[in-house]
Amino acid sequence: MTGVVGLLAGIRDVGRDRRRGGWSRFAYSPAELTLREWFLAEASRRSMDVEIDRNGLLWAWRRGIGGSLDDAVVTGSHLDSVPGGGQFDGPLGVASALTAVDLLDARGVAPTRPLAIVVFPEEEGGRFGEACLGSRLLIGDLHPDRALARTDADGITLAEALTAAGLDPSRVGRDDKTLSRISTFVELHVEQGRGLIDLDRPVAIGSSIIGHGLWRLTVTGQGNHAGATLMTDRRDPMVAAAAIVVAVRDTARAFSGARATVGRIQPTPGGTNVIPSRVDIWLDVRHPIDAVAEQIVTSILERARPLAASEGCEIALVKESYGGAVDFDQALRNRLAAVLPDAPHLDVGAGHDAGVLAERMPTAMLFTRNPTGVSHSPEEGVEDADAEAGAAALADVLEELLR
Amino acid sequence: MTGVVGLLAGIRDVGRDRRRGGWSRFAYSPAELTLREWFLAEASRRSMDVEIDRNGLLWAWRRGIGGSLDDAVVTGSHLDSVPGGGQFDGPLGVASALTAVDLLDARGVAPTRPLAIVVFPEEEGGRFGEACLGSRLLIGDLHPDRALARTDADGITLAEALTAAGLDPSRVGRDDKTLSRISTFVELHVEQGRGLIDLDRPVAIGSSIIGHGLWRLTVTGQGNHAGATLMTDRRDPMVAAAAIVVAVRDTARAFSGARATVGRIQPTPGGTNVIPSRVDIWLDVRHPIDAVAEQIVTSILERARPLAASEGCEIALVKESYGGAVDFDQALRNRLAAVLPDAPHLDVGAGHDAGVLAERMPTAMLFTRNPTGVSHSPEEGVEDADAEAGAAALADVLEELLR
Repeated sequence: MTGVVGLLAGIRDVGRDRRRGGWSRFAYSPAELTLREWFLAEASRRSMDVEIDRNGLLWAWRRGIGGSLDDAVVTGSHLDSVPGGGQFDGPLGVASALTAVDLLDARGVAPTRPLAIVVFPEEEGGRFGEACLGSRLLIGDLHPDRALARTDADGITLAEALTAAGLDPSRVGRDDKTLSRISTFVELHVEQGRGLIDLDRPVAIGSSIIGHGLWRLTVTGQGNHAGATLMTDRRDPMVAAAAIVVAVRDTARAFSGARATVGRIQPTPGGTNVIPSRVDIWLDVRHPIDAVAEQIVTSILERARPLAASEGCEIALVKESYGGAVDFDQALRNRLAAVLPDAPHLDVGAGHDAGVLAERMPTAMLFTRNPTGVSHSPEEGVEDADAEAGAAALADVLEELLR
Repeated sequence: MTGVVGLLAGIRDVGRDRRRGGWSRFAYSPAELTLREWFLAEASRRSMDVEIDRNGLLWAWRRGIGGSLDDAVVTGSHLDSVPGGGQFDGPLGVASALTAVDLLDARGVAPTRPLAIVVFPEEEGGRFGEACLGSRLLIGDLHPDRALARTDADGITLAEALTAAGLDPSRVGRDDKTLSRISTFVELHVEQGRGLIDLDRPVAIGSSIIGHGLWRLTVTGQGNHAGATLMTDRRDPMVAAAAIVVAVRDTARAFSGARATVGRIQPTPGGTNVIPSRVDIWLDVRHPIDAVAEQIVTSILERARPLAASEGCEIALVKESYGGAVDFDQALRNRLAAVLPDAPHLDVGAGHDAGVLAERMPTAMLFTRNPTGVSHSPEEGVEDADAEAGAAALADVLEELLR
């Protein structure tokens, strides 16, 4: 097999998660390191010069006239996944980029400007809890000390994981030399909603990314014995946290366009026969307007306080991250629209490295149809014909941008 | 230091849990194995014959006349803990037993019948999820195949853990030879509620253990992306599970004497930016009357079904374990009451190995005051004078029973 489908078939068994179902390909885990090796080998097979930059991003270069690496057109995506996610979220963009290079070669396109494919580590935040970690380090949006001290579920720091992967943590941070080479970035990604299903089209152009924040809400009560403690003597943070989870959903429903999700909840100590002493819940809140996202969180907090107090519990809220709403470059979108006149333009609910790079350079996104509309789940899908249509659209766009 | 306080001071740093706080001493973990070695050494120092039986129980014997091991009076408790529990739940009973032997020696008691101290593994079910595992294997209340296949959080089976600890899994199971030696069992334990605080007494006699069951409720929905999935398109099992957690508490409040607790909740996959595909919650339900405990669970299920359905989710309930209510032997309690006329008699909300052995032999329990009333938490406590008073009471009881 060739093309996107053939490339992805070669990595289908990497990082399968038998327990959760789907795939778990955490940044710098054995599975993701295997995928990184796969990418470097595929790029080398296409006569691209490969390198790993200071922040662990992988780069594959087709040099421009005179061996130039400046004023480059860059495409790419990520290879890491959420826990128990699908096989396309990330790798589809990387495989489509490699296939687009093949298509440009087959068309005999001889670009004057350099073309690069990039692979970002920890886009999902699935291991260290910091989404778009690689791109945010690259542009200097995330302090190296903060990033390096982040720990995974086993207490391993990013610094330790980088060292284990052969990288030098002391070199992590804003990389102006690399940034200065990129003139334009285009990321292809599997769609994470139902937009293209409803419109009956295989490929879309992204118009904006809605704002996205992560907050951690800690509910503190009184840890105690589940059998020896009367119901009337309890200060149970699990009951308070549960009431708050319902309130989070109810709050989000009250704001048009809002999404609010609790996907992770962690009682301490977490024994079946123990009333927890604390419960942490993580609030993922998104809205197209940043100020409204803040209003939603304020409203959640206002509802949560009395719910906790009525259980004799206390709450504390910490903002873990926030990425503001991003409108993709209008001039670049117009060039894409001219190349892909049939492609609809869609707002995007999920964060992407393209949204991070959009702060520094003209950036665009393409989306390939997902026939289930389901994302961050093994049920995510891409039909073969759509995968190849996406790569062809990306090749069309790159050919235009490389003129 | 001597006595109970001195003994416990020697193991205070074993199994400290820096992450959760308190102590985590899971069965056959390095921490619990250290405690088991400590017990065997302390027993040997008291000229007791030590042995490890087929089910991993530790035994320390003072032989009767002619070296007899039959018709023995046995005391003891457990050394394992819940995750992030206190330091007294279990070890207090073992240290009190060792101290009681010292007190009997100091009093010059020369028993005619044998005296043994026993240590039960996995009383809490903190590692393999099967409370009172050691005592239930001993009496044949738990099938060896079921027990050996149980896994811990890392997927290690009990069979593997036993093998790693130098035990032979093929020998696990009902042990009539060991059972036949025991005439009477008395377990001393730290109190897990506020009974002795309210009565202003240091030591109590247990009258009964209330029934205790564990059920697992699985809520299944549609895993999806937290940003790309509109609130109206969701079938979110976290919201359904949260509503059910609140309903569990409300149901328990409606039944006098009931306790119902959700101490553990596990979303799959559990990423912060993912709507889970399923959420498991564990229901710990207890009531002095077994039939009412079943009614409580039925009532929870009746409330849970429409809550799940209103989120587009489905539920499934599995009974993981049930231990019926236990009344301790009346004649034995009367003997204890004669020896300890000032000790109040208390109903017990927590399960114990003594409750398991009570199915087969006259069994009793003593409780030492806990000044916080808090259990399964680092805040559990025992004052020094109460610890020694408990051991002295146990020695008084043993002296009477050894006549």
